[in-house]
Amino acid sequence: MTTAHHNTVSSPALPPLRLGIAGLGTVGTGVIRLLRTHMALLQSRTGRQIEVIAVSARNRTRDRGIDLSALQWYDNPIALAAAPDIDVVVELMGGADGAARALVEAALKAGKAVVTANKALVARHAQTLARLSHKHDAPLLFEAAVAGGIPAIKMVREGVAPDALTRLGGILNGTSNFILTEMAETGRAFDDVLKEAQEKGYAEADPSADIDGWDAAHKLSILTAIAFRPILFDSLAVSGMRRITTSDIHQARKLGYAIKMLGVARRLADDRVEAWVQPCLIPAQSGLAQVNGVYNALTTEGPFSGPITISGQGAGEGPTANAVMADIIDLARGHALPLWGRMAEQAPIACEPIEGLPSRFYLRITLKTPSDAVPDATTALREVRTILENEALPIESGHHHMEGDAAQLIFLTGTTSLAEINRLLPILEEVAFINGTPLALKLEDLP
Amino acid sequence: MTTAHHNTVSSPALPPLRLGIAGLGTVGTGVIRLLRTHMALLQSRTGRQIEVIAVSARNRTRDRGIDLSALQWYDNPIALAAAPDIDVVVELMGGADGAARALVEAALKAGKAVVTANKALVARHAQTLARLSHKHDAPLLFEAAVAGGIPAIKMVREGVAPDALTRLGGILNGTSNFILTEMAETGRAFDDVLKEAQEKGYAEADPSADIDGWDAAHKLSILTAIAFRPILFDSLAVSGMRRITTSDIHQARKLGYAIKMLGVARRLADDRVEAWVQPCLIPAQSGLAQVNGVYNALTTEGPFSGPITISGQGAGEGPTANAVMADIIDLARGHALPLWGRMAEQAPIACEPIEGLPSRFYLRITLKTPSDAVPDATTALREVRTILENEALPIESGHHHMEGDAAQLIFLTGTTSLAEINRLLPILEEVAFINGTPLALKLEDLP
Repeated sequence: MTTAHHNTVSSPALPPLRLGIAGLGTVGTGVIRLLRTHMALLQSRTGRQIEVIAVSARNRTRDRGIDLSALQWYDNPIALAAAPDIDVVVELMGGADGAARALVEAALKAGKAVVTANKALVARHAQTLARLSHKHDAPLLFEAAVAGGIPAIKMVREGVAPDALTRLGGILNGTSNFILTEMAETGRAFDDVLKEAQEKGYAEADPSADIDGWDAAHKLSILTAIAFRPILFDSLAVSGMRRITTSDIHQARKLGYAIKMLGVARRLADDRVEAWVQPCLIPAQSGLAQVNGVYNALTTEGPFSGPITISGQGAGEGPTANAVMADIIDLARGHALPLWGRMAEQAPIACEPIEGLPSRFYLRITLKTPSDAVPDATTALREVRTILENEALPIESGHHHMEGDAAQLIFLTGTTSLAEINRLLPILEEVAFINGTPLALKLEDLP
Repeated sequence: MTTAHHNTVSSPALPPLRLGIAGLGTVGTGVIRLLRTHMALLQSRTGRQIEVIAVSARNRTRDRGIDLSALQWYDNPIALAAAPDIDVVVELMGGADGAARALVEAALKAGKAVVTANKALVARHAQTLARLSHKHDAPLLFEAAVAGGIPAIKMVREGVAPDALTRLGGILNGTSNFILTEMAETGRAFDDVLKEAQEKGYAEADPSADIDGWDAAHKLSILTAIAFRPILFDSLAVSGMRRITTSDIHQARKLGYAIKMLGVARRLADDRVEAWVQPCLIPAQSGLAQVNGVYNALTTEGPFSGPITISGQGAGEGPTANAVMADIIDLARGHALPLWGRMAEQAPIACEPIEGLPSRFYLRITLKTPSDAVPDATTALREVRTILENEALPIESGHHHMEGDAAQLIFLTGTTSLAEINRLLPILEEVAFINGTPLALKLEDLP
């Protein structure tokens, strides 16, 4: 083949690939455990030995259940970037800034390949990292940063690389999916399930990253950059799931929908991009609606490739270690790509403001507890529907049900926009018999 | 990085990658259409131009809906292998032998990279092809040979490459899945649905490759070689779906199972491999049970990666063209691997004979139409259960139902073996009130 690239299938004997690992939490020890368990397999897959020669972590004496005595120990992780005998720096410390960022940047500047599971770092500093990677010809791989053990990055950057995707969407956070699944299956309230998730170690003491959508937003930002083009992270619209009740899940199900915390990105005309993270109603028979518990899943759609869905464990020692090691295998095989899988860097753009995007919505309106001032539910349904239709909101269906001692009205709208919904919510709040702020959830049609 | 491999992310300007395509059916024209539609995207993904310069097909004058006037035309496909200006030969003619095989072997011998969608060729002549690929340092890629647009090969050869998988299994044939889905959803009989599938073009006039399992067997053989080790194709146990009735699907559903045509391979102790294609009962809530219509899906399981499922369109112009082009992108990026993703060739082995493998079964026994010689269904159920238990077959449950004018007995066995089932079938056939040969279907537990 006439190519400047190295396209060989019969490799000469290659020197060992030497790793330095920063961060020895669950994933770091998982990577070492995987390497030791599957050493012969890894060698047969790559034709070379892959070995950890150095580690860095805060606590030198903690028992991690694995023998680290033969490894060099660096108290300062940045030193891994300078170590001449390390080929690949594996950053598993976490955090968008601080030591993790300093190490990754130093390693790239030293021309070393970097493998990381750090979604916040990649999502928030992509432009700087892409530039360093390119300038110093140092690959930066991050399969483990998105959806744990699922090869989601590989699927988008390679598997459907030929296709101009029109949309990608997924369940990108296992904790929030676990909570929604438990609420749906057991009827328990959000706070109760969250507490259980925290006790089981599925959720952090501060659950915000998971349930307010930030963790999913980091992952979506990365996927969007690969599939469409880089976006400014702060322009992503993110909203969390704290207001979802078990009753919402049941009402949605009655209407043929499941409620899932989704991250979705769409290619719009003129190279614009729509991207957001929020709880949505999706068709109950869609592939993503079947993904339950701590599982993650990603669906891509393109004019040639059609819909493809991949699902698996989104976190945990084993799956994440598998993803880290898949990147290391790619490096050992000599396969590396620019950060977003494109040869020319594209400047990040702001996502399209979500307020103007066409969408349907689920609208939940709670009435005040019955009294002389509160009409019966049937009358209230008719009156509120009239208010909405007088404001030119298309209504496709409406029903009422009792929730505790108050009635709730549930509407499905026709195609409108968040701007319209936001204009109508204060109008509804002023209706004398309506209690609190109505809840609006986006409907997203997924295959 | 100290590596003999080319691990660069900032590529120099590369010459165009020039393709010669043999076979201009649906997939061949689809590949040309994709190239022309997504030319800018492909260039941005690879940093080089990808162009078709030559084609070969039987009929030079047929209208294929695309302009071929600028391309060199070869009447003899083998000539593509010798053309000095072609970098990659794309074989889309099909057939395990004949012109397709001659072209692929000639191209590899000429040191050219080959991309093919030809599952029969790869499954049946893997050892020869692997040797030629290695000897002449010519990559042979075949993502499109397995599960159409789904990046199944990439997932197994790269995504879960670090893990020693314990099992992989999938719905690897869209036609048979379409038929089973239609039977389940409409209650129509097998023959009736097959006829419709043939009229719609989903099934061939001779449907044997699809419904007797041979198409799935080719794909399973390829996946098994990558995940575990190469197997002798003829040692694969293959059985078809012609005896499945709509009633079987309904009875299985009552018991909490779906019936799917599956290809499954398992890693056994001592480097042995179990692999087979057959209709199976799988848990109704498992991921594969949700995969309907012409969709394909693959689940892998490993100690680190856990269960991962990928699903999408298993055939058709767009998805298959996407898969072919994904391989071409890998070549353009300089990423190529040995046939099975391992550096050292392993000799193929025979699969473990399935007769001795432990399994549970679904057993359907039809009684003769009611007469004085035929006991009532409750009595028959008790008598047959006694016969089976006297033969030491563990029975977990049994029930009866009417199917047309005769009663049927349905048993789920405990763990036994196909050898035991095969020993008992003639004993059952000799029972005076049993009509015909009972049907036994394997139960496969899938996540």
